[in-house]
Amino acid sequence: MSSPDGAPLFAWQTPSWVSLSTAASQFHSDPSLHLRRLTSDATRCGAMQASLSVASGPGAGSSLVYDYSRQQVLPATLEQLFDLAEATGLSRKVASMRAGDPVNGTEGRAVLHHALRQPKGEPPKGPEGGRLGKAHEDVHAVLDRIEAFAAEVRGGGHRGATGESIVNYVAVGIGGSQLGPEFVNEALRADAEAAAAAKGRTLRFLANVDPVDVHLSLSDLDPARTMVIVISKTFTTAETMLNARTAKRWLLDGLGKGAGEAAVVGKHMVAVSTALEKTSAFGIKPENVFGFWDWVGGRYSVSSAVGVLPLSLLYSYPVMQKFLAGAHDADRHFFEKPLRQNIPVLMGLLGVWNSTFMGYATRALLPYSQALKRFPAHIQQVDMESNGKRVAMDGTELPFAAGEINFGEPGTNGQHSFYQLMHQGRVVPADFIGFCNSQAPMEFAGERVSNHDELMANFFAQPDALALGKTLADCESEGIPEALRPHKVFSGNRPSSSLLMTRLDAFAVGQLLAIYEHRTAVQGFVWGINSFDQWGVELGKALAGNVRNQLEMSRKNKATVAGFSSSTSSLLEHYLASGK
Amino acid sequence: MSSPDGAPLFAWQTPSWVSLSTAASQFHSDPSLHLRRLTSDATRCGAMQASLSVASGPGAGSSLVYDYSRQQVLPATLEQLFDLAEATGLSRKVASMRAGDPVNGTEGRAVLHHALRQPKGEPPKGPEGGRLGKAHEDVHAVLDRIEAFAAEVRGGGHRGATGESIVNYVAVGIGGSQLGPEFVNEALRADAEAAAAAKGRTLRFLANVDPVDVHLSLSDLDPARTMVIVISKTFTTAETMLNARTAKRWLLDGLGKGAGEAAVVGKHMVAVSTALEKTSAFGIKPENVFGFWDWVGGRYSVSSAVGVLPLSLLYSYPVMQKFLAGAHDADRHFFEKPLRQNIPVLMGLLGVWNSTFMGYATRALLPYSQALKRFPAHIQQVDMESNGKRVAMDGTELPFAAGEINFGEPGTNGQHSFYQLMHQGRVVPADFIGFCNSQAPMEFAGERVSNHDELMANFFAQPDALALGKTLADCESEGIPEALRPHKVFSGNRPSSSLLMTRLDAFAVGQLLAIYEHRTAVQGFVWGINSFDQWGVELGKALAGNVRNQLEMSRKNKATVAGFSSSTSSLLEHYLASGK
Repeated sequence: MSSPDGAPLFAWQTPSWVSLSTAASQFHSDPSLHLRRLTSDATRCGAMQASLSVASGPGAGSSLVYDYSRQQVLPATLEQLFDLAEATGLSRKVASMRAGDPVNGTEGRAVLHHALRQPKGEPPKGPEGGRLGKAHEDVHAVLDRIEAFAAEVRGGGHRGATGESIVNYVAVGIGGSQLGPEFVNEALRADAEAAAAAKGRTLRFLANVDPVDVHLSLSDLDPARTMVIVISKTFTTAETMLNARTAKRWLLDGLGKGAGEAAVVGKHMVAVSTALEKTSAFGIKPENVFGFWDWVGGRYSVSSAVGVLPLSLLYSYPVMQKFLAGAHDADRHFFEKPLRQNIPVLMGLLGVWNSTFMGYATRALLPYSQALKRFPAHIQQVDMESNGKRVAMDGTELPFAAGEINFGEPGTNGQHSFYQLMHQGRVVPADFIGFCNSQAPMEFAGERVSNHDELMANFFAQPDALALGKTLADCESEGIPEALRPHKVFSGNRPSSSLLMTRLDAFAVGQLLAIYEHRTAVQGFVWGINSFDQWGVELGKALAGNVRNQLEMSRKNKATVAGFSSSTSSLLEHYLASGK
Repeated sequence: MSSPDGAPLFAWQTPSWVSLSTAASQFHSDPSLHLRRLTSDATRCGAMQASLSVASGPGAGSSLVYDYSRQQVLPATLEQLFDLAEATGLSRKVASMRAGDPVNGTEGRAVLHHALRQPKGEPPKGPEGGRLGKAHEDVHAVLDRIEAFAAEVRGGGHRGATGESIVNYVAVGIGGSQLGPEFVNEALRADAEAAAAAKGRTLRFLANVDPVDVHLSLSDLDPARTMVIVISKTFTTAETMLNARTAKRWLLDGLGKGAGEAAVVGKHMVAVSTALEKTSAFGIKPENVFGFWDWVGGRYSVSSAVGVLPLSLLYSYPVMQKFLAGAHDADRHFFEKPLRQNIPVLMGLLGVWNSTFMGYATRALLPYSQALKRFPAHIQQVDMESNGKRVAMDGTELPFAAGEINFGEPGTNGQHSFYQLMHQGRVVPADFIGFCNSQAPMEFAGERVSNHDELMANFFAQPDALALGKTLADCESEGIPEALRPHKVFSGNRPSSSLLMTRLDAFAVGQLLAIYEHRTAVQGFVWGINSFDQWGVELGKALAGNVRNQLEMSRKNKATVAGFSSSTSSLLEHYLASGK
C-alpha cells in the first residue's frame, strides 16, 4: 500500500519506524544517553533551539524561543524523525491543508482555520489563492460585521429592550465553543490594553447542562444589561440548546412583561451558527447571527466568530485583531519554515517520539503564568479530540495507540501538586511555557527579586531538576542520613521542552494557540489519522437519548426501567427513587 | 524479607502478584472477558456494588452507591486483590494509621487527618483512645476558636482598622493549603444553606507567586473590608510568604496611613500555621493564629484550620461542621467495614489492578456536577503527590511504577473535549460521580425532562458506551456506509466505576473528600510506599534558589550567567535581555 507519490502510506510501514523503535530501546537501556550527559554537550544543546521573531506589525519586537535540548533525542534521532515525516508525506499534507484540500476525509471537508487569520486585504497568493479567495472574502465579511456590531453594543448604539446599555455577555456553548474562548478570556484579563477595554463589562461562559452552571452564570446578572450569545454550528447541540432555552426564559422572566418576547430576544440574544433557519425559529434576528463554515472544526473555532464575537464585545475588536494577527504570524511560520526550524513540526515530531516510541502516553502543559490557567484544558480538547483515534484515515486499524493524554495546571501551583510524581514517579514529558515580562509587574523594596523573577526562577529550575536528577552519591555528599538517601534520589532523565516568549498579550495568545493547533495536526499527519473528525463522541450521545426517554417515561408515567444492562437499571432505579 | 507477622513485606513478593499478572494477561487476550459479556451477567453485576447509608445526624436519609461492575474484573480477580491486600498487611496498616502510629516513616510522624473529623464529645474509644485523646482535645480547642472567631467576624464584632465589617476573605496558600479549600468552596457555592450564609461575602484563593494572580485577586477588593488568611504550616513556603508580604503592602497602602501598621495587620491578617514565632514576627497577633499539627499533611489538611477557617468565614461554622461530619462518616466506613464492602478499599484495589496489572497509568475523574469542577485538581494533588514514588517505605527501589496520573473536568463538558480519546483512543479508567438531586433544580414546561435529568442521562450513558462499545456488525446493521464503518466502531471494554450520591451538600462533600483520601492511602499501603512524604519536591526548590541568586545578581550587578547547563544559561540570558 503506498501513497500516490510512491511513499508508504502508513508510518509503521516506513524504515524510520523500525530505526526509531531501536533508538528508543537504546535510550531506555544505555546510561550514556542520560539527559545529565546529553545536556552537558553545549554543541548539541545549542542546535536544539528554534525561534520566531516578529519584525513589524502588532507583535513587533517580540520573540519566541523553543528549546528542546532536554528531550531524549540525539541529532541522529531528530534526523530519523524528519525521515519519518518525509516518508509519511508531512510536508505534502500540510500543503494540502493550507490549500483547502478535503484533508478531513471522513467528512469530505477542508480544514481552513488558518484562513480565519489571513489578514484583510492580503488574499492568499499562489495556485491555491483562487480557491481560497471565497473563504477569505467570507471570513472578512463576518469579521467586518463583528467589528461593527461590537462597536455598536460597546458604544451604546445597540441597547437592551429597556433602553439600558448592555455590558454583561454570556456565551452559551460547549466544547470548542467554550474552551478556546474561555482560555483567551482568562489570558487577557490582566493585559493592560485588554483590561482597559473591558472595564465595566463582564463575559461569562455557560457550557454545562448542569442547572448549577446556569444558576451560577445568570442569577446575579441584571437581564436588562445582559446579552446571551448562543454558539452552536448546527444549533442542535443538546446541552447548548437547553441552556439557550433556559437563558431565554430567564431574559423573558426578567424583561418580557414590559418589552415583549420579540424585543427581548431581538435585543438580548445573538448567535454564532451556520443554521439560519433554526436561529430564526428561535427568534434571533438574521442580522444578529454570525456565521462560520464547515471547514472550521469546533475545537479549531476560537479564531472564528465563536471566539471573536464574545471576546470583541468584552475586549473590543481591535484587541481581537491583534490576537488574529498573532495566530497568522504562527500560521506563516508553520507553513513556510523548513521542517528543522519549524516549531509546531518539532513539537509534533517530539510528541510522536515520546508517545509512540518512548512509551510515554501522557504529557503535561505547564504554563508559568496564572493567566494561562485554562490553556491546558483547551489544548487537552484540541489534542485529545483530534488524535485519540483507533483507525487510520482509510479505516485501517492502527497497530499502535495514537493520541496523547494532556493535562496541566499553572506553575508554580503544579509544583505543590502533581510534580512529585513527575520527579520521582512516572515519566511525563512536559512543556514549560514562560514569559520574559509580566502582565502585572510587581517589585518591592526589601525583596531580593521581583515577583515575576521569583515565578520564573521556578520556570528555569524545574526542567533541569527533571532532566538532571540527583544521585545517591549527591545525597551522600550532602550528608543526608543513610536511611533517607534513597527517598531523596531523583533518577532524572525526564524530558521537557521550554517555550519562552516576550510577553503575554493578545498577539502572543494568538501565536500560542496556532502553534499548539498545528502541533496536533503534525502528529495526526504523521500517524496517518484524521485529526479533524470526532466519531467517538456519537455513541454516548445516542445512549444518552435512550436514558432521557426512560427518565421522561418513568417520571411522567411511572414506566419501569427496561432495556439497560443490569448495573445501569439498578442505578437508574435508585436514581428515580432518590430524587426528582 | 518479611513483616513482623510473617507476611511478605512487598507486594511484588506475594503469590497474588503473580496470579494477578496472569489474570491481567487473560483480560488482555481473551475476548470472552470483554465487558460487553461481563456486564450481561446480572449476578456478577449485582455483587459489584457497595453502599453507605446514613441513618441519623446531619446527613440522615442520604446514601451513596458505588458500582464497579464495569471494571475488568471477575469475582475471582477481586479475591486475588483481597489476597494481595491481606498479604501486604493492608488491614494492619489501616489500623496503625487510625491508631496514630508513625506510618509516615521517613518523617517519623503519625497520619491523623481522620482525627480532625472526630466529633466533639466523642473521643476515640478502644486501646488507641488514650493515645489519641490529646490530639482530639487539640483539634476541638482549635475548632472552638474558629467557631468563635468566625461568629465574631461574620457578626461584626471583629471589624477592620477603619471600623468597617469584613466581608471579603483572601486565603493565601499553595498546594494543599489551596486546592482542598478551593474545591470545597466551589462545591458549596450553589448549595442553598451555604449560599444563604455566604450572601454578601466573598472568598478568594491566592496561590501562585505570579504577580498576575495577586493583581487579579486583590485589585478590585476594598482593603477596609478584606481579611487576608496566610496559610503555611512552617510560615516559610516561598510563594506564600512573598504573596503574604505583597498582600500586607496592599493593606498598608490602602489603610496604613490612617490606622498604622499594627492595627492594620492585627485586624486584617490572620494565619493558619504552627510557627508562632514567625507569625508574630510578621505582625499577626497570637490570638489570630490557628494551629494544626505535624500529623496533618498539607494535602490532607482541608479538614483542619487550613480549610475550616476560611470556609467558616464565608459559609459559617455550622456549615463546616456538616462537612466535618460527612468526612467522619466516611472515615468510620473506611475503618470499620470489612474489605469487601469498604468503598475506599475497593476503589484503591481497583486502582492497583488497573495501573499495576492492566497497565493503565492514567485515570479520569468525571463529576457530573459543575460544582465539583475543582475536585479533580484537588484529588490530582492528593493522589499524585502521595503515590508518585520511586522507592518502598524502606528505601528499596520499586520494580514497578507506583502512582497514577489523575485528571478530569466536569461532565458533560468533558464529553465535548477528551472523551473522544477515551472512547476510541487509549484506555483511561474513569470514575463517574453523580447526584440524584440538583443543588439548583430547574424544570420547564415544554421540556421533556428537567435540566438535571438531562445532565444525568449522560452520567448513565457514558459508562455503558465505554464498556459495551459498538461493533462493525452494529455499524453495518445501522446502514452506515462501508467506508465510514471502521471510523464508527467503538472497541468498548473500557473500565469505569460509578458513584451515585443523594445530593451534593456540605455533608456529602466531606464524605467524598474522605473516600478519595482513603483510596489513595489504600493504594500506597498495598504498594508498600510512604504516601505521606513528598521528598520529590525538594530538588526543584533548591535549583530555583540558584536561579533566584543569579537573577538578583544579574539585575543588580550585571553579573554574567554562570553555573547552569548551556541550555539554561542561554534561556536565562535571553530572559534577562528581553525583560525586566
